[in-house]
Amino acid sequence: MYNEGMAKRAAENLRLVRARKPLVHNITNYVVMNYTANALLACGAAPVMAHASEEVEEMVSLAGALVLNIGTLSTPWIDSMVKAGKRANALHVPVILDPVGAGATTLRTETARRLIEAVSVQVIRGNASEILALSPGQSGSRTKGVDSVHTVDEVEQMAVALARELRVVLAVTGVVDLVTDGRNSYRGMNGHEMMSRVTGTGCTATAIIGAFLAVEADALKAAATGLSYFGLAGEKAATGRPGPGTFQIALLDALYAMKEEELRSGARIQG
Amino acid sequence: MYNEGMAKRAAENLRLVRARKPLVHNITNYVVMNYTANALLACGAAPVMAHASEEVEEMVSLAGALVLNIGTLSTPWIDSMVKAGKRANALHVPVILDPVGAGATTLRTETARRLIEAVSVQVIRGNASEILALSPGQSGSRTKGVDSVHTVDEVEQMAVALARELRVVLAVTGVVDLVTDGRNSYRGMNGHEMMSRVTGTGCTATAIIGAFLAVEADALKAAATGLSYFGLAGEKAATGRPGPGTFQIALLDALYAMKEEELRSGARIQG
Amino acid sequence: MYNEGMAKRAAENLRLVRARKPLVHNITNYVVMNYTANALLACGAAPVMAHASEEVEEMVSLAGALVLNIGTLSTPWIDSMVKAGKRANALHVPVILDPVGAGATTLRTETARRLIEAVSVQVIRGNASEILALSPGQSGSRTKGVDSVHTVDEVEQMAVALARELRVVLAVTGVVDLVTDGRNSYRGMNGHEMMSRVTGTGCTATAIIGAFLAVEADALKAAATGLSYFGLAGEKAATGRPGPGTFQIALLDALYAMKEEELRSGARIQG
Repeated sequence: MYNEGMAKRAAENLRLVRARKPLVHNITNYVVMNYTANALLACGAAPVMAHASEEVEEMVSLAGALVLNIGTLSTPWIDSMVKAGKRANALHVPVILDPVGAGATTLRTETARRLIEAVSVQVIRGNASEILALSPGQSGSRTKGVDSVHTVDEVEQMAVALARELRVVLAVTGVVDLVTDGRNSYRGMNGHEMMSRVTGTGCTATAIIGAFLAVEADALKAAATGLSYFGLAGEKAATGRPGPGTFQIALLDALYAMKEEELRSGARIQG
Repeated sequence: MYNEGMAKRAAENLRLVRARKPLVHNITNYVVMNYTANALLACGAAPVMAHASEEVEEMVSLAGALVLNIGTLSTPWIDSMVKAGKRANALHVPVILDPVGAGATTLRTETARRLIEAVSVQVIRGNASEILALSPGQSGSRTKGVDSVHTVDEVEQMAVALARELRVVLAVTGVVDLVTDGRNSYRGMNGHEMMSRVTGTGCTATAIIGAFLAVEADALKAAATGLSYFGLAGEKAATGRPGPGTFQIALLDALYAMKEEELRSGARIQG
Repeated sequence: MYNEGMAKRAAENLRLVRARKPLVHNITNYVVMNYTANALLACGAAPVMAHASEEVEEMVSLAGALVLNIGTLSTPWIDSMVKAGKRANALHVPVILDPVGAGATTLRTETARRLIEAVSVQVIRGNASEILALSPGQSGSRTKGVDSVHTVDEVEQMAVALARELRVVLAVTGVVDLVTDGRNSYRGMNGHEMMSRVTGTGCTATAIIGAFLAVEADALKAAATGLSYFGLAGEKAATGRPGPGTFQIALLDALYAMKEEELRSGARIQG
């Protein structure tokens, strides 16, 4: 029922992150900086946050992956994202984009699109609303509620078309995670409802995929395996936690304590 | 001894927040962004942080309440607060201000006053020093120590006069919380000493009142009931915690797990 | 084997922090603001974060110590650091610098050096790479890996020479902490490996030394005793924690709950 090769690959990618400790350069939002840095450390990666125009090119040249997250945008940060992204491209450092809130405001939708145009992005991770707001066919207007009005099959169909159009891997997270490059797709079944009650779990998923991209050349597989690791950690963390506070802390512990063998047997990836 | 009608209303407001999941738009300080976002999620509300001048008007138009917090000010953020506040006023979105550090520096005192003049604010939440620093009679100079040199009765007297003058609901938090619109007042007796050992509990109280304002048209009652919910969660969280680390996390759990019936029986509001 | 006088002094300094509750003004990075504020509160100090050019001079005039941390730099913040530092100097408020990432990018190395030139800094706290990158003899280029290629003795020798040259106390943290003013040196043996799995523990060590500087006139002793307190709290917190999430929270509890007598018997300072 689940793809055993991918489960094995998830475990192998986790092993590589821990062995190589890739530097992951994040230009991300204020809300999640601390949590995503801690999550990356818990995985075995080495996080760095740096956004100054004067240093992003130098910093990204040291990195194994670049994470761009538009959660608390402002103009100088957008410029730094473009600058860092272009340098990452020149150096073949993989780039992942998290279009937080695309579809909610024009600034976010347009910034996400501008980044996709200016920078060759390997993976985009968001929820269905955010991802589908990136479609050139969509107007800049709001797409709130995409999650609820479409079935998983419908969202997948739209994501496949969009991935092909944008020539990028799309990771659409939700109750079921969809990962597609427009030709091949995976569905990830790991995760727990409590993850939606903690701020920045989506952003953290993005950062973890970033760490996986640093050790896995196939972006589609990096995204699918990274999500299975994060989702399985979420399941483990949720057991016996009375609320989102203890859950959020247990999630860091679970990322840290996850045995590669556990991930191999617990990753539930289809496709 | 305690106002049963208000306890009932507290429970009802909590039920409404959970049912309606209002979007609460925060322009707040870097220190507390993560914690207040998590607290709002734990309550059942939907937090968003957005400060760019280009998007605050659009974002606030989606929101059920706007929270302005001056804890880590800089000029572009002040401009965005004014812009968002004016738009909120035009759309009848309630606004709550947290004048963090008013009275400590001229920039903070003057920014708080500027916001009150430029924007119609429904509630201001702060400690006694911060609130009384907003009095037009006060010089811009320091008011440190107001908490200690005045009794609760004296602070209440000053707050009542100031609320009337500013035509706003003042929520003065401390060992006893005072909430007044200048005519009617409530005293809130919920809370725990440990709350003062965690950064941003005041800011979190403000954010939670924001969520309550999104579902309760009476700003005085929104403030008093929101504080009783937060204070009672603090009491529950403090039981058996050895220090502020575990307490802070348990507080998120307590906000999440609070039964409406518990709040109805545990809210201790006088007046 | 360990210096009993210093252990006694550590306990005394902790007592003084708790008794005097010094205001510690931080101009620090976004990633750690929340955590260092909570750590300072847990110690008994009063943290404030303020970075606006318009208010830093006023804020630092209220403070017992100033913490400058370059972890998420940008130009306006650098200017505020210089401004606050100069004012601190004029008022004899002690200043501690954390040169996060010095040696990794030119901006960070040059900013750290610029701060040291423009401001009289009492203590600089960093890891070996960061500290040795400040040497005028070093080129602006990368010094990654200094930690691993030199022995503790070699690092100490370089730190002693650099401290003498810069006329500052250097606190070089690692498995063994080295604290030196170029004439006298201490080695701190407290700490736990898990501290390296949480973001911002170095920055937190810096903030705690800041609180100790506010009550201890001898900067060398403030640094050595502050590190012993923080390291011992780390040891206590690590016992029985399955991972960095629960550890990080337990560390705040341990800072809060540490008895002065425990610190006196547990501080392991040599020299």
